Amino acid sequence: MEPMDQILMKAQTLIEALPYIQKFNNKKVVVKYGGSAMLDENLQLNVIKDVALLKLVGMQPIIVHGGGKEISKWVSLLGHESTFVEGLRVTDEETMEVAEMVLGKVNKNLVQMIEKLGVKAVGISGKDGSTLKVEKKYANGQDIGYVGNITEVNADLINTLIDNNFIPVIAPIGLDADYHAYNINADDAACAVATAIGAEKLAFLTDIEGVYTDPSDKNTLISVLTLEKADKLMTNGFIGGGMLPKLKNCIDAVKGGVSRVHILDGRMEHCLLLEFFTNRGIGTAILSNESILFDNEKMQAEG
Amino acid sequence: MEPMDQILMKAQTLIEALPYIQKFNNKKVVVKYGGSAMLDENLQLNVIKDVALLKLVGMQPIIVHGGGKEISKWVSLLGHESTFVEGLRVTDEETMEVAEMVLGKVNKNLVQMIEKLGVKAVGISGKDGSTLKVEKKYANGQDIGYVGNITEVNADLINTLIDNNFIPVIAPIGLDADYHAYNINADDAACAVATAIGAEKLAFLTDIEGVYTDPSDKNTLISVLTLEKADKLMTNGFIGGGMLPKLKNCIDAVKGGVSRVHILDGRMEHCLLLEFFTNRGIGTAILSNESILFDNEKMQAEG
Amino acid sequence: MEPMDQILMKAQTLIEALPYIQKFNNKKVVVKYGGSAMLDENLQLNVIKDVALLKLVGMQPIIVHGGGKEISKWVSLLGHESTFVEGLRVTDEETMEVAEMVLGKVNKNLVQMIEKLGVKAVGISGKDGSTLKVEKKYANGQDIGYVGNITEVNADLINTLIDNNFIPVIAPIGLDADYHAYNINADDAACAVATAIGAEKLAFLTDIEGVYTDPSDKNTLISVLTLEKADKLMTNGFIGGGMLPKLKNCIDAVKGGVSRVHILDGRMEHCLLLEFFTNRGIGTAILSNESILFDNEKMQAEG
Amino acid sequence: MEPMDQILMKAQTLIEALPYIQKFNNKKVVVKYGGSAMLDENLQLNVIKDVALLKLVGMQPIIVHGGGKEISKWVSLLGHESTFVEGLRVTDEETMEVAEMVLGKVNKNLVQMIEKLGVKAVGISGKDGSTLKVEKKYANGQDIGYVGNITEVNADLINTLIDNNFIPVIAPIGLDADYHAYNINADDAACAVATAIGAEKLAFLTDIEGVYTDPSDKNTLISVLTLEKADKLMTNGFIGGGMLPKLKNCIDAVKGGVSRVHILDGRMEHCLLLEFFTNRGIGTAILSNESILFDNEKMQAEG
Amino acid sequence: MEPMDQILMKAQTLIEALPYIQKFNNKKVVVKYGGSAMLDENLQLNVIKDVALLKLVGMQPIIVHGGGKEISKWVSLLGHESTFVEGLRVTDEETMEVAEMVLGKVNKNLVQMIEKLGVKAVGISGKDGSTLKVEKKYANGQDIGYVGNITEVNADLINTLIDNNFIPVIAPIGLDADYHAYNINADDAACAVATAIGAEKLAFLTDIEGVYTDPSDKNTLISVLTLEKADKLMTNGFIGGGMLPKLKNCIDAVKGGVSRVHILDGRMEHCLLLEFFTNRGIGTAILSNESILFDNEKMQAEG
Amino acid sequence: MEPMDQILMKAQTLIEALPYIQKFNNKKVVVKYGGSAMLDENLQLNVIKDVALLKLVGMQPIIVHGGGKEISKWVSLLGHESTFVEGLRVTDEETMEVAEMVLGKVNKNLVQMIEKLGVKAVGISGKDGSTLKVEKKYANGQDIGYVGNITEVNADLINTLIDNNFIPVIAPIGLDADYHAYNINADDAACAVATAIGAEKLAFLTDIEGVYTDPSDKNTLISVLTLEKADKLMTNGFIGGGMLPKLKNCIDAVKGGVSRVHILDGRMEHCLLLEFFTNRGIGTAILSNESILFDNEKMQAEG
Repeated sequence: MEPMDQILMKAQTLIEALPYIQKFNNKKVVVKYGGSAMLDENLQLNVIKDVALLKLVGMQPIIVHGGGKEISKWVSLLGHESTFVEGLRVTDEETMEVAEMVLGKVNKNLVQMIEKLGVKAVGISGKDGSTLKVEKKYANGQDIGYVGNITEVNADLINTLIDNNFIPVIAPIGLDADYHAYNINADDAACAVATAIGAEKLAFLTDIEGVYTDPSDKNTLISVLTLEKADKLMTNGFIGGGMLPKLKNCIDAVKGGVSRVHILDGRMEHCLLLEFFTNRGIGTAILSNESILFDNEKMQAEG
Repeated sequence: MEPMDQILMKAQTLIEALPYIQKFNNKKVVVKYGGSAMLDENLQLNVIKDVALLKLVGMQPIIVHGGGKEISKWVSLLGHESTFVEGLRVTDEETMEVAEMVLGKVNKNLVQMIEKLGVKAVGISGKDGSTLKVEKKYANGQDIGYVGNITEVNADLINTLIDNNFIPVIAPIGLDADYHAYNINADDAACAVATAIGAEKLAFLTDIEGVYTDPSDKNTLISVLTLEKADKLMTNGFIGGGMLPKLKNCIDAVKGGVSRVHILDGRMEHCLLLEFFTNRGIGTAILSNESILFDNEKMQAEG
Repeated sequence: MEPMDQILMKAQTLIEALPYIQKFNNKKVVVKYGGSAMLDENLQLNVIKDVALLKLVGMQPIIVHGGGKEISKWVSLLGHESTFVEGLRVTDEETMEVAEMVLGKVNKNLVQMIEKLGVKAVGISGKDGSTLKVEKKYANGQDIGYVGNITEVNADLINTLIDNNFIPVIAPIGLDADYHAYNINADDAACAVATAIGAEKLAFLTDIEGVYTDPSDKNTLISVLTLEKADKLMTNGFIGGGMLPKLKNCIDAVKGGVSRVHILDGRMEHCLLLEFFTNRGIGTAILSNESILFDNEKMQAEG
Repeated sequence: MEPMDQILMKAQTLIEALPYIQKFNNKKVVVKYGGSAMLDENLQLNVIKDVALLKLVGMQPIIVHGGGKEISKWVSLLGHESTFVEGLRVTDEETMEVAEMVLGKVNKNLVQMIEKLGVKAVGISGKDGSTLKVEKKYANGQDIGYVGNITEVNADLINTLIDNNFIPVIAPIGLDADYHAYNINADDAACAVATAIGAEKLAFLTDIEGVYTDPSDKNTLISVLTLEKADKLMTNGFIGGGMLPKLKNCIDAVKGGVSRVHILDGRMEHCLLLEFFTNRGIGTAILSNESILFDNEKMQAEG
Repeated sequence: MEPMDQILMKAQTLIEALPYIQKFNNKKVVVKYGGSAMLDENLQLNVIKDVALLKLVGMQPIIVHGGGKEISKWVSLLGHESTFVEGLRVTDEETMEVAEMVLGKVNKNLVQMIEKLGVKAVGISGKDGSTLKVEKKYANGQDIGYVGNITEVNADLINTLIDNNFIPVIAPIGLDADYHAYNINADDAACAVATAIGAEKLAFLTDIEGVYTDPSDKNTLISVLTLEKADKLMTNGFIGGGMLPKLKNCIDAVKGGVSRVHILDGRMEHCLLLEFFTNRGIGTAILSNESILFDNEKMQAEG
Repeated sequence: MEPMDQILMKAQTLIEALPYIQKFNNKKVVVKYGGSAMLDENLQLNVIKDVALLKLVGMQPIIVHGGGKEISKWVSLLGHESTFVEGLRVTDEETMEVAEMVLGKVNKNLVQMIEKLGVKAVGISGKDGSTLKVEKKYANGQDIGYVGNITEVNADLINTLIDNNFIPVIAPIGLDADYHAYNINADDAACAVATAIGAEKLAFLTDIEGVYTDPSDKNTLISVLTLEKADKLMTNGFIGGGMLPKLKNCIDAVKGGVSRVHILDGRMEHCLLLEFFTNRGIGTAILSNESILFDNEKMQAEG
């Protein structure tokens, strides 16, 4: 049996979670799930457990997932090769078919894992209920096939599922005006969904610890980033390649009404729980201004 | 412009449909969709239009689809070969993965076609909301891998979708007690779903005109088959190979409370509409006894 | 049995109806029923069947009926004579009593016919739930007794009936501020009801084919009439006697928010169905402007 | 101004009503309205005020009315003559038409009076919503035309009206299996409706003070009649001609679940109010047994 | 047995109440209960019966009660003494504890009396559901302890109770921003609650007959007081000591949207009933202007 | 900042709670609150925090509290003395008044503490909504005044509060058939309430660690007690004085349908949280039989 001091620490942890559970009660939170956190089986299980816990303590989590590396694997399994323009996969009819099959597989696997924990989930793509409508996206003016920009989110189906206690798990595929299928960048999809359903939080699980003033210096991690500061950082060229579009997405989401957007390190176990339920903020939080900070965040923002 | 007599015939057709629309108002009807009707693009569009019309005139259609031939195609595309025992595909982990991907693709394509007609649809598999729970199925006592018998249908998700005006499109995949994925025979799935949700009708789109007393003689097509007659036919060996399990499924559904089960020829254009909305019964109807026949069916049953 | 090509034409007719059923799903449509279509028993049954079908495919039909000729018949049966000023019946206390009795008879007969088709209906007058409030109407400044102008429609009862799946059948009788009964012109009543309940369509069953540029020349039937065109026609004196007040009613309804008002020939069998469910527009459609035309109407409007 | 003692008596009267208002809160009470109370204008207004008050203090009144004398008047106005067999009017097609018109007039007049008091009402006949289904009634085996026995009450419409705060006013006309109209005895209709909707009370407004042991002796009025006593009275021949069918109706209603049936003297002003809201029971109350008596009724039953 | 004329007068009284019952149907009415009406057991029972009757005829009464004399009694029972500044009790921690206990006792006794009449009631204080939030009130700048001014009414709990058919009985205790308990003047609480829940009426049961132009002359009682007149009276110094704050409360309530505020003499039996249900207005009514007067009130206002 | 291993332990604690949160989601849990846990301010705050957390993670906690020691204190403050028969306080009119005042004070203080945590609560006694109906309880045949046995729980009010997201806090006072107030033993009240509302759990906060086979030997604490074992223990005289009635209450609750009854040591900080959310069962659990044990409890039951 555990010693009594350890038991008391457990109680303290639960009590510490109380104000956060209260604050986010019945609030919608979108989790963009991708990167390393999706490839390692142990991390995958941890993420799913975290999301299930969010649901059980009264929040309304929604998962938007990617699957880029898995798509590449199957494209080559089938004897083709993926080419990229500006980091975007050129997507012909054939590639689109494979992409949809792979994202469908990933999607239902996540559902399966959540259901195994006794929590209800439904896997959809943007086709279902015409949830995601898109238009063709060009890469530097170049036609790269069935890659889409979201023009409209029809949130009826997502809200129906939430209202009936299912966690929606969303694959980033959309339909254009002629109802042809398009691939969508998962970060874009998460951002558009969070804005459309009025999410309180949007959390990106990424492969870095957060935003740095100087990416080469781990000590320059930024805990809290207001819109103003973020603009300045981008203007001054402090934000590097892969982070730039992600940060733009975060800013769009905050401008679209999402109170807090978080860039978390998906490689860290239970990073979602720690961000949601403990006094220790992790990763980088992007928000409109500092007036909505919690007390502990203020200290971190200052110190 | 059309001549007036043709216009009047149109009005007559609509009026002829009136009692059927009335009879099935708000009733759930399950359509098992597979075979040739799924491979030909024109037939596919016709089936989808028919289902959309059922929805629009006030019924609650549910589609359960198969995808066997498409699975075989992708299995060989990936350099494997399917083997069958007693007509059932031996399904190892790898085959299961491909099967799920292919069924997912078929599933979302159907959704896409329905949405294009302006009707709302959602594609699910038996994993979503743990809708279909299974146990391992053996072929003559032989382990053939991840092939399942349905043990339980959890209809919550299907009913949620129906109540919110979405047509559920269901891929025949289930979860066992340990939440592993299994392939399910689509006829079995359609039958189990129809029984579980209290469907009024179950229509199988097949590659034959219906049940024959003598399959070699097209004149022996049976219009109406009571449970009693069906039993007799099976006992006497009149029912041939492929039809036997399908007929057993029909009988199970009728015993499970579905009022009418229809075996229709999916190769005939708009066979669903003609069966639902005109005086001309087509294919074979299986029902508990003749007392629930419509007047015109009685004539067909007699003549 | 029918030959196969005829059967396929039936399916085509149903499919042709699909976009219209979809477009008017759950929309309220007011049918002003009077004239010849009410006197001929066969036509009467056809109209009722059409209305029942509208209901069964998901619309919300409301009938407003007249009964002028029947009233005249009973007034003379009782040994009196009707006198008219400006086409309006002078309505003393005694005539009002007869008018109400006759309209009540017509009203419940329509209910009876709808119920016989298995569809639910309720017959009301403007007295029930104080649905129609009126003030005295003068004919050229002359007091003609209990003839009323509608001042207010209280739609609670109509909406209650619709929400509970009953077709409201409305007799054009109203109450003034002192709760005395008044006779109302049925066209006026239909127009006021359609506006008050936010109807999508208002269809007048009349004794002519529609509006003509030159009533003496059957080839000048106008298919589509915008408000602008209608104003011009009336100003230029092209619109003859009986049609003028009816057209004014149509214009009021369109201005009051009803999307489409139709003048149909009630003497043509199933004119309602043909107007609602086929590509062939019949009669004259009055609408705010041409931007809301269907494609086929556009062709008719142009050609 | 009123003297203070009179004012206090008013307060006492209201307080006296308290337990009755409480007891019948939200309970359905059917009032059969006919006879003298319907012919005298002052009495008519009093009855309508009483019913309006029942509604306003929280009960759910339903009126079922007759109109026999008025029908006779109009039949002769139109130059015909009514013949009766066993007290039932022989009702040919023509008489039925007149009866329906007259009952419709009476029906809407009652609605008009209730609406004038600011309370919502709707006038229906048994045709509306197929509320009253009948079969032909024979008088001593003789066919007397369209006179019906109720075989079924479809209470959907009545309940819809009640749930939406309208007082249903019901004319005793029904439909047979072929949807032909029939005249119904209003007492029968009131009894059938009360039973079908689970009424708590059924009050007959009649032209006598109640049931007498000896009709020639006003002192033998019976205040409370249990089923047992009623049976004995009828068996012993104490109950005279007109009262016999009415008493049978009362007994049927009590057996059908109505807690209390009252025979009241409609010629007495505000008899309904006095019966419902004061300690002084009036007329005759029929109930299953004495155990459900109020204390004051017990005294009356004994004394 | 009562003579018939007395019985008829009872019916008349009930009919006289009809328009008032109708007018206040489902309206919220706040009764401030205090003073002599609370100390005399007979008066207490009468007030409770009146409130129960209001509830039973369809209004939504809410009681706000005081308890000052009872608090003083218990404070001295416990050996302390109450001191007052500007008529406000100086309330230290100890006094607050006693005040809360005494008000709790009074509160639950009222509930008990209402329940005994078969009507449902719930006793709450402003602590429950944080219904009443306060800030410290100063008496001429002097700190007098836990005496509060209401800053916010959270009406959720009150509305929940009303919607579920309970009469809320409210003790005037509130919580400040740090959730410390404060005593509140009951008149203030009644006024704040009436405004917050959108009450139609607010009735103060007081120890005087109403507002007088000259308190020494009983003939100068004012029946109806508009805001304008009230302002003038106060400005001109006609309103004496105790009445001044009460009248200010009345004016605040009228300005806050309460249609009518009544100052009634709680020492008069059934004053509530007489005010609500008879033509004889009693006490003083304060309202925004004379346009909303009933006809009988107009006469009183003029005469 | 905390070291990383401590942070991970926090995440582990939250994940450990997951199955318990899931298991008790939306379940009603009654907490009997009394004894030392109510006297120490720190313990009091801990209990309230624990209850608030139960609410926030989706359970429906109800508090039933005592107040015996506080009552005794006030009784003597007022110069009286409490006498006891068989451990029950002799309760005359005067004592009853004090008891109700004190319990009211305790009740609203608990509400105040919960509200301060931002969670909604309402304090009621068994008088409100006539929630607790009682009959006089005798001590060995002796009349001890207003001490009651619960005869009926009317759960409407409790359920209304729960459904509207308020935590009900219940003082153990009831009404007899004549609506006189009675004091009730708080353990009895908790047991009756838990049974009446279908609680899943009932937890008694007591002043001992649980049930011992041998109270003098701390090593004989019983973790899990089935009904069978409990009976045996009581029969064999192992259960001492104060514990006997409490254990009988537990047994009654289990027989009444409560799945688990817990005897916890209220003096241990956060004992509720530890019992509900960790693998370490504490105190003694009473349940119908061992088949409903969790795995970890089985181990404890065995080991």
